[in-house]
Amino acid sequence: MKALEERILKDGQVRPGQILKVDSFINHQMDIPFINEIGKEFKRLFSDKPVNKILTIEASGIGIACITAQYFNAPVVFAKKAQSINLDGDQYTTKVQSYTHRKTYDVILAKRFLGPEDHVLVVDDFLANGCAVNGLIDIIEKSGATLEGVGIVIEKGFQDGGRELRARGIDVKSLAIIESMTDTEITFREQD
Amino acid sequence: MKALEERILKDGQVRPGQILKVDSFINHQMDIPFINEIGKEFKRLFSDKPVNKILTIEASGIGIACITAQYFNAPVVFAKKAQSINLDGDQYTTKVQSYTHRKTYDVILAKRFLGPEDHVLVVDDFLANGCAVNGLIDIIEKSGATLEGVGIVIEKGFQDGGRELRARGIDVKSLAIIESMTDTEITFREQD
Repeated sequence: MKALEERILKDGQVRPGQILKVDSFINHQMDIPFINEIGKEFKRLFSDKPVNKILTIEASGIGIACITAQYFNAPVVFAKKAQSINLDGDQYTTKVQSYTHRKTYDVILAKRFLGPEDHVLVVDDFLANGCAVNGLIDIIEKSGATLEGVGIVIEKGFQDGGRELRARGIDVKSLAIIESMTDTEITFREQD
Repeated sequence: MKALEERILKDGQVRPGQILKVDSFINHQMDIPFINEIGKEFKRLFSDKPVNKILTIEASGIGIACITAQYFNAPVVFAKKAQSINLDGDQYTTKVQSYTHRKTYDVILAKRFLGPEDHVLVVDDFLANGCAVNGLIDIIEKSGATLEGVGIVIEKGFQDGGRELRARGIDVKSLAIIESMTDTEITFREQD
């Protein structure tokens, strides 16, 4: 998505540790008309899939998922970082490692919001080592739902998450894939 | 908002401790067309205010804020629960006590996303004792921005948050105000 690459070059900031900050338009302040363009692009890319539910994880995926869901006429379900695991068996649980915060947390999703009848598009803002997306896929598998695809705003192509997911046959589409990143230059992977 | 009161009666669940669960349509699974109706109603209620920014707090306020922002042509800024406080002075910080999780956490907002030029509508899913909203107002005051109003989806009218905010002259509008709540009955406050 050309407009996204241009916006990253204009407003993104590279920080030590190969961290890309896009918090002026994606994940702290949110440019809503721009995120609508992102939602429309996800719809274009997954228009052949029978998506009836958008799945994401709190916190920064939620806004993008909600705007995107409007183009699919589908509800959003967001997995929650657990404060405490409720053991009454009414929720799916999985573990997700946070690269940024260097810790592992429990993620939960109420069972009644995902089941074998669902066709799911996973949406998130970033894909790097794939921990968050893998946690969501684990929940989808536990629920018996069908994973139709994964829509990512920005993929760090120099980390392994996207490659590993595609090697498993999962339809991952990232609107911008960063091939390499230094303080002074960001290079994107060519996409059709 | 009549449709919201009806939806709460139909799909809300009262849990011990006067907890109202609306997680099938508001804050775990999200009914996006319904949240669009909520966004339109906020626009109707605050149509006379020169709002140029929607402010909320992660996580469950984000989706509602994003959908609502479409009706105001304004960006969303969401305050973050801090993993670690960055002391370089480029962010506002405040403390928020969580009623549900019985703990206090630090909340941050990057200074460059809120300043004296901003006219802010605060949006959140719930108002009970007002801790989250008071934290956001504290950040607005520190930034020099103007608070135009507070839009809440569901207010627990039997707790003090809404009353105290209105006593300070803050324009709080809640789409549904619960006057009382038992296992078998939810009563709403009459509103114009």
